[in-house]
Amino acid sequence: MNSIAKIIGKIQKEMLITTMENLLTYLHGLEKLYGLDRNGSKLELIKEIYSTMAEFKKVEKPDLPPDVVKVGYKTSYSKRIDYADVYLFSIVSGDWNPIHHDEEFASKTRFKKRVVHGMLTLSLISNALALIPGAVVLVKQSVEYVKPVYIGDTVTAEAEIVEELPKGRYRVKVECKNQNEETVAKGECIILIWKVEKRNNK
Amino acid sequence: MNSIAKIIGKIQKEMLITTMENLLTYLHGLEKLYGLDRNGSKLELIKEIYSTMAEFKKVEKPDLPPDVVKVGYKTSYSKRIDYADVYLFSIVSGDWNPIHHDEEFASKTRFKKRVVHGMLTLSLISNALALIPGAVVLVKQSVEYVKPVYIGDTVTAEAEIVEELPKGRYRVKVECKNQNEETVAKGECIILIWKVEKRNNK
Repeated sequence: MNSIAKIIGKIQKEMLITTMENLLTYLHGLEKLYGLDRNGSKLELIKEIYSTMAEFKKVEKPDLPPDVVKVGYKTSYSKRIDYADVYLFSIVSGDWNPIHHDEEFASKTRFKKRVVHGMLTLSLISNALALIPGAVVLVKQSVEYVKPVYIGDTVTAEAEIVEELPKGRYRVKVECKNQNEETVAKGECIILIWKVEKRNNK
Repeated sequence: MNSIAKIIGKIQKEMLITTMENLLTYLHGLEKLYGLDRNGSKLELIKEIYSTMAEFKKVEKPDLPPDVVKVGYKTSYSKRIDYADVYLFSIVSGDWNPIHHDEEFASKTRFKKRVVHGMLTLSLISNALALIPGAVVLVKQSVEYVKPVYIGDTVTAEAEIVEELPKGRYRVKVECKNQNEETVAKGECIILIWKVEKRNNK
């Protein structure tokens, strides 16, 4: 019985995907007609779908002049990492390592459960750095992964300016902690800060 | 005229998003009924939508025993980085730095155009490493960003084992090049390789 129900479910799911594709084609036509940004709407749809599974966050960058950036200046960014994040990161990176996706495979490793890509955890540092005033460009990074991050963990990425270097560069101490205040990754980055005219309020 | 068309387009787009949401609610109900993996289907939909805008790639990991891994062993992974990748990476990382999204803002910087997140470029290395036989775990990484990567560039990430370390660890030289064979990022990683029973063919 259950398997028949599954087959029916699968057929209906496939119908739904077809409907989705038709809708996308329709959207495509509409946008062409009205000169809208086609991919823009598709990306909005992705954001909508993602938001039903995981935590969508867009933190406003503080509107401060770059000259507040001095040794001791700190930023932080916190986010729960859900399976949807792992899946999206796999789409982008191409990294479908089963240690992140396959429960059974992961259970045979020392981690026992599926873990988050190290570089996904690190990506939260990308945002902690981006929250520093000015146009921030990453120049160098050196990071050590200390503990595994499991799906569902909330990671806080912290960045602190520790040294001012020549030519608008800064040495930044970075660290990621989980919800139990355990360090999961740590290291340092060199960033470059460009002073740019007031940014758009996007 | 154009603005009226845009308003009509906007209304139709909003209707479409509502339709999408209704479809998702319907899918939700269906899956509950048939015991399907709810989020699994939503992630498939995201993959479908993404595939209409960018290059979806899933490279099969070669089914080789971990003992082929020796000094000189190389892997590589190549992918065109589209705006959809930048957008998905922003969803995951929370990094909505306008240098990646806002043409006007980017035009005022020395890059002149929107650039790809450094850590997104780096994520392709995550996959080059994952393609090494065995269960690969990233322990440490040290990377320098040499040149900007622009949206639409094709990046090739290369990894080469350069030293065997104690306790199943390896030093790996990593490098990312663009379509003009220019190095955009380079550095090294330390990885740990676990021997795991034959992985699922997923």
